Amino acid sequence: MALTLDEGLDRLGALAVRTGLGLRAGQELLITAPLEAVPLVRRITEHAYRAGASLVTTFYGDDVTRLARFRHGHADSFDTAPGWMFAGMAEAYRGGAARLAITGDDPALLSGCNPDFVARASRAQSVAYRPALELITSFATNWSIVAAATPAWAAMVFPDLPTEEAVAALWSAIFTASRVDHADPVAAWAAHNRAIHARRDALNAHRFAALHFRGPGTDLRVGLADGHLWEGGAGEARNGITCNPNIPTEEVFTTPHCARVEGVVRSTKPLSYQGTLIDGIAVRFEAGRIVEAHAERGETVLQRVLATDAGANRLGEVALVPHSSPISASGLLFGNTLFDENAASHIALGQAYRTCMQDADGLDDAALEARGANSSLIHIDWMIGSGEIEVDGIAADGSASPLMRAGEFLGAFAS
Amino acid sequence: MALTLDEGLDRLGALAVRTGLGLRAGQELLITAPLEAVPLVRRITEHAYRAGASLVTTFYGDDVTRLARFRHGHADSFDTAPGWMFAGMAEAYRGGAARLAITGDDPALLSGCNPDFVARASRAQSVAYRPALELITSFATNWSIVAAATPAWAAMVFPDLPTEEAVAALWSAIFTASRVDHADPVAAWAAHNRAIHARRDALNAHRFAALHFRGPGTDLRVGLADGHLWEGGAGEARNGITCNPNIPTEEVFTTPHCARVEGVVRSTKPLSYQGTLIDGIAVRFEAGRIVEAHAERGETVLQRVLATDAGANRLGEVALVPHSSPISASGLLFGNTLFDENAASHIALGQAYRTCMQDADGLDDAALEARGANSSLIHIDWMIGSGEIEVDGIAADGSASPLMRAGEFLGAFAS
Ligand SMILES: [Zn+2]
Ligand SMILES: [Zn+2]
Ligand SMILES: [Zn+2]
Ligand SMILES: [Zn+2]
Repeated sequence: MALTLDEGLDRLGALAVRTGLGLRAGQELLITAPLEAVPLVRRITEHAYRAGASLVTTFYGDDVTRLARFRHGHADSFDTAPGWMFAGMAEAYRGGAARLAITGDDPALLSGCNPDFVARASRAQSVAYRPALELITSFATNWSIVAAATPAWAAMVFPDLPTEEAVAALWSAIFTASRVDHADPVAAWAAHNRAIHARRDALNAHRFAALHFRGPGTDLRVGLADGHLWEGGAGEARNGITCNPNIPTEEVFTTPHCARVEGVVRSTKPLSYQGTLIDGIAVRFEAGRIVEAHAERGETVLQRVLATDAGANRLGEVALVPHSSPISASGLLFGNTLFDENAASHIALGQAYRTCMQDADGLDDAALEARGANSSLIHIDWMIGSGEIEVDGIAADGSASPLMRAGEFLGAFAS
Repeated sequence: MALTLDEGLDRLGALAVRTGLGLRAGQELLITAPLEAVPLVRRITEHAYRAGASLVTTFYGDDVTRLARFRHGHADSFDTAPGWMFAGMAEAYRGGAARLAITGDDPALLSGCNPDFVARASRAQSVAYRPALELITSFATNWSIVAAATPAWAAMVFPDLPTEEAVAALWSAIFTASRVDHADPVAAWAAHNRAIHARRDALNAHRFAALHFRGPGTDLRVGLADGHLWEGGAGEARNGITCNPNIPTEEVFTTPHCARVEGVVRSTKPLSYQGTLIDGIAVRFEAGRIVEAHAERGETVLQRVLATDAGANRLGEVALVPHSSPISASGLLFGNTLFDENAASHIALGQAYRTCMQDADGLDDAALEARGANSSLIHIDWMIGSGEIEVDGIAADGSASPLMRAGEFLGAFAS
C-alpha cells in the first residue's frame, strides 16, 4: 500500500500521540525536533490538541547553527551547555509533561570538525542534560521517539538518489518500519506489542545468568545483572501511562552485569555518535571492562568516548533483535540508532536502565550498581548482530540453551 | 542603495549582534524567533559565534501550531502556559545570557479565534512569563529586538502584492527602518544614538511635571512620575554592557504618574495585541484611570485587556516620536509595535519601566508605585501621535513650554 507523504505524516502523527505517547487529556507535551521536521511536528501537534493536550511546546534544533558553532566559535567556548534549558525540561517532566523526540539529524554532521571541540561540547552537553535524562530513563513520564526524514540523513541512506527522491525514499522506509503502512497502524502496533511481550516474558521466566554471543570476530560472554529484567515494546511509565518509547522497536533488552563481561566482539554496522561515524569496532572485555578497543573509522572519537568516565567502557544494555526484523529486511543502513539498533542484536556502552532491574523503586544508584547495573554519562548502542550470529542463554549452573541461530530466535523465543 | 536579501540579512545579523546586543565574548545568547526567520537566525548565530558567543540557543515559535491550539484544543485547556520554559529562560539571564527577540508574527493570527480562549491563554502566558520578563525590563542583561519579514505579516502590510513580492518589500522596509541600508550601519547607529541621547538629556534637564497632548479627539494631560527619567536609544544594562533594546528605535520615553492622567485621547494607528487588531480607540482618563473606553474594532478584546488587573487601565509609559521619523515617512502601517511605536508618539497601558525612574536600584515595587510608576501584567503600546499633534511640557509651576508642533520637535528638542 503506497501512502502519500501527507497521509504518512498524518498517520505517523496520530500513531506518535496514541501509541507512542499514550497522551492523556490535560497533559502538556514537549517535543524536540530538527527544523526539517516542521510538517510532522504540525501533524503531531494537531493530533495532540485533539487528544486534549493542554499545551504543546517544540524545541527545534538546527544542524546549520550547530555546525556554525564548531566552524566559528572561539576555542575557549566549547565547555558551555544550556543547563538552564534542560532544567526547564526537567521541571516540565516533573510537572507531568509527556516527551516526544523526533530524530533525523545528519548522522555525520560533525565529522569534519575539531574532535577536541566536539568532545568538550558533547561532554558539557551530557553533564548538563543528565538530570532531565534521568527522568526519562527512570520512566518518570510517558515518552517516545519517532523519526523524520531530513535531506542530510536521506543523502546518507540513499547516496545515489537526488535529494528529493532520497527524502521521499527515506520517508517511505520510515513509514514501513514504523508500521504506518498498515491499514490500522494502532491495531498493528497492538499485535506487535503482544509478540514482543511474549518473547520478553519467556526470557524473564528463564532467569539466565549470562548470554553467549558467537559469530565472525565475536566470542562474547555477557553476564546479566542480579535481578535483571527483560523489557521490550510498550511499557508503563511511573505516571501510570502506557507508552511505546521507540517507534519503531523490535528489540528485547536487559541489563548486563557491569563486572561480568568477557571476550571479544566486533561491530556489524557503523554507529553515529553525536555527528561522527564510528565503524569496524573490535574490542576485548575483561571482568566487564574494555581493555582493548579499535575502530576502522572514528577510532579517536571512540577512544575519547571510552574515557568519558569510569562507566563508559562497561556495558549498560544487551538487546536481542531477530535478523529477519522489517528494518533488517529493508537492507538499509540508516546511520541512526533508532533504526539500526532495531535491525540487529546490540550492546550499549554506559548507563543502564533502572526499568531493566527488578524491585528498583526506591533503590539508589549504589544499590543498583552492587547488583551489576552500570552508571555513566553516556549510553551508546552498538550493533553486534547479523545473520551469522548465534546466541545461547547460560543458566546459573552453566548449562546452555540455544536462543538464536543464524540471527533468528528459536523455540519459545520465536513467538 | 539597493541591498540584496542576503546582504540585508547579513548586515542586519551583524548589527543585531554588535549594536543591538553589544554581545560580549564568552556570553551565551538566547534567541526567540518565528520559524520563517530561520535565514536571519542563521546569520545572527554565525556573527554571534564569530564575536565569541559561548552558545547560541534559539526557541522557534510557529503560528500554525499556535492557531491549532485554539482550533482543536479542549475548552478546559487554555489556562496552561510553559512556566518551566520561562523559568529556564530566567535562569539563563541570571547566568549572564544575552537575549534577542525576533518579531514577525502574523499581527491578526488569532482574530477569528474564541476570544475567551485567547484571553485565558494570554493571561496564563503573562503570569508565567513575568519572572523572566522582569529581568528584561529591569535591564539585568543586554537585550534587543529586531524584525523578520514573514509571509503573513507582509500580506498585511502590502495587501495588494503577491506573497513573494510582499515579503521582499517588507524586508526592504525593515532594512531601511533598521538603517542597514547605510554604507556602515554600525556607524549610522552611533550617530543616531547621539541624536536621541541629546534629546533625552534636554528633556531630563527640564524635569517637566506633565505633558499636554492636543490633537483631533485628543486633549490629554499626562502627569510624569516623581523622579521619572527619560530614556531612549542605546542604554547600559546592569551587567555593564551597552545595547540597543529596539532596532529600529526613534522614541524618547519616560514614566507617567499612574494617578495623574486626565482627559481624552484617540489612537492614531491600529495596534495588534497577541494576534488581534484593535483600532479606533477612544478613552477618557480620570485621576490616572481609564473610566470610559471604546474601539471601532476589537472593543471586546480591549475591554478584556483593561480588566486584566488593577494596573491594566493606567499608563506605564509615555513616548515622543517625531512625525518625520523614517518609519513614519515610509507611510506604511506595520501592525507591529516595534515599528508603529517608532512612527508616532505613544502611550502604554500597564507596566512601567524601572529604568525610567531615578535611583530605582534596590527599591521595591511599592516604593516605585508610591512615586507613580504603574504595575501590571501587561504593557501595551498605543499610538496617539500624528502630523496634527501638539505637545507642551508643563513645569511644576504650571507654565507650558512647547515641545512639538504639527508632530515635530521644536528648539533644543529637535537635536
Ligand atoms: Zn537497545
Ligand atoms: Zn540502548
Ligand atoms: Zn515606547
Ligand atoms: Zn512600550
